[in-house]
Amino acid sequence: MNWYLQSGKDSDVVMSTRVRYARNFRNYKFGIKEKEEAKKIEEEIKSKLMNVGYGLKLLKLEDMDDITKMSLLEKNVISPECAMDKSGVCDILINDEENICILLNEEEHMKLQVFSGSFDLDGTFNLAREIDKKLEETFDIAKSKKYGYLTNKLTDVGTGMRASVMVHLPGLTKTGNIRKVLDSVSSFGLNIRGVYGENSKSSGDMYQISNKQTLGITEDDIIKNLKVITEKIIEQERTARRMLAKNQILLEDIVYRSFGILSNCKKISAEETRNLLSDVKLGTDLGIIKEINDSKVLQIYLYTKPANLQKKIGQNLDAFDRDVKRAEVIKEIINSK
Amino acid sequence: MNWYLQSGKDSDVVMSTRVRYARNFRNYKFGIKEKEEAKKIEEEIKSKLMNVGYGLKLLKLEDMDDITKMSLLEKNVISPECAMDKSGVCDILINDEENICILLNEEEHMKLQVFSGSFDLDGTFNLAREIDKKLEETFDIAKSKKYGYLTNKLTDVGTGMRASVMVHLPGLTKTGNIRKVLDSVSSFGLNIRGVYGENSKSSGDMYQISNKQTLGITEDDIIKNLKVITEKIIEQERTARRMLAKNQILLEDIVYRSFGILSNCKKISAEETRNLLSDVKLGTDLGIIKEINDSKVLQIYLYTKPANLQKKIGQNLDAFDRDVKRAEVIKEIINSK
Repeated sequence: MNWYLQSGKDSDVVMSTRVRYARNFRNYKFGIKEKEEAKKIEEEIKSKLMNVGYGLKLLKLEDMDDITKMSLLEKNVISPECAMDKSGVCDILINDEENICILLNEEEHMKLQVFSGSFDLDGTFNLAREIDKKLEETFDIAKSKKYGYLTNKLTDVGTGMRASVMVHLPGLTKTGNIRKVLDSVSSFGLNIRGVYGENSKSSGDMYQISNKQTLGITEDDIIKNLKVITEKIIEQERTARRMLAKNQILLEDIVYRSFGILSNCKKISAEETRNLLSDVKLGTDLGIIKEINDSKVLQIYLYTKPANLQKKIGQNLDAFDRDVKRAEVIKEIINSK
Repeated sequence: MNWYLQSGKDSDVVMSTRVRYARNFRNYKFGIKEKEEAKKIEEEIKSKLMNVGYGLKLLKLEDMDDITKMSLLEKNVISPECAMDKSGVCDILINDEENICILLNEEEHMKLQVFSGSFDLDGTFNLAREIDKKLEETFDIAKSKKYGYLTNKLTDVGTGMRASVMVHLPGLTKTGNIRKVLDSVSSFGLNIRGVYGENSKSSGDMYQISNKQTLGITEDDIIKNLKVITEKIIEQERTARRMLAKNQILLEDIVYRSFGILSNCKKISAEETRNLLSDVKLGTDLGIIKEINDSKVLQIYLYTKPANLQKKIGQNLDAFDRDVKRAEVIKEIINSK
């Protein structure tokens, strides 16, 4: 099963973990925008891909239709820069489980990304480090004694590493404590931002926490720091949920009304789906709703996103038809065995 | 089955029909407020009740608990004046089906009321007239050659008759045409008012249409006039619904979302229930919802009203507990065989 349909440790709060490395080849120009240059790197990678392993296959984004590209973006497997690339230089190396994806010729020559569907910074970090070692054995990677790994984007110089955790914080939102938490995370040298919606306002109560610094800090410290703060947030979110659960009927009412609309509507937008699903997930996490489980919630999250919805249906749909099909797909998933 | 749980002719728009007569005894003071006077009338009626027939039984409101009184008021079987009577003079004659109820010593000595659960002005009028004749044969009723029936309230002098029809107008409301209809009804010498909510704003889209005039107009003309106008409104409401039905998905979405909340919520107010049920009834009337039928809709209308809810549960409940039990009763009715 693909990582974004899996749950695991602390999945009541953590949706996913990601570790990524920015890496560049010593012998090529950084920040490639020309097809000829990109082609050389592509050939170099192709010729040695067997040495890297991990079931990685080269996919040329140029050959991919827009919906497939957007569906990868919606899974956070590729970046917006990659999905929108018009120059035709950006490609990806990806395995079947889609938990390893290396972006080629995006901002950097290689952006190695490893994903997990639960709170697993250590596992994700270890796998990323292992693959990175393989890349270094296989290719001539640009680094300096003084600065560490050299990158096109200055903010990535050093470890070239960014780790992030996506968390679902409906409890802190409903108890009105979310602002305080967002501010305190910032003061620990981490970024936190709403995954959907404007600025720090999140629709669907999803937030991504990641490290700010990549230079002058070890990889281990980045991971340790992010882990400690995320554990703190998990605890605060659970405390908020316990507070909400004191008024059991009120909480059940919120959860079941959202479930009632989700399971009965005949058309629904992606944003409304996210918002209602946030309540329903809170219900499954607290064990107060029996009509739907974790796995179905994750399926609905995925298959109601515009591009993944169209991929599932196998049709290009306009906005109105998407809203109608989205409602059908939700019912299908809820009623599935 | 009681009339308020029945549907029949034009039940897609008309909820009920009522005809009532104001009648007084020639030999007693009008507008009785003293218990001794009331007692005399009570004795007179009791002694001749067998002659009237129709299974009417005398119920003393004084002996009735508040919830039972309020439950009769919620069914529109007794008037607010009757339900709130503190002087202890007001009693009722009522049959088991509750489609005949004579209020005693309310504003008038007798207010004979006959109800039907569908659009049946002729049937209701004929039965009321038949019973009224029986009352005239049995008792000495006050009337004058010049004015007709004499009453305590001046607005009732003449025929002493008021006929009314309760209609459900969600189509005219949703298409924004309701204001125009309300105004035009007024200009035909009829009253129309929202059954719930402030002024002419109705919650639940329920309106009562009744005659204004009782003097200088025959009973037949009152009935004819009300019938013609109601038929007009039924037609306009159906036209509005056909307009809504042109956007099938949009209409189904409204109906099913309301059904989804009603059938899943864990607490709900009487007013929200009325509003959601209005959409659901529109759905059953148009045949676009299969999960619930007419009969269940009528049961929900009745048993979610505060007093009828408490009578059904057999318990006095505070506002919060009523909201919780209301949600349970709705689910029970929807899931019943």
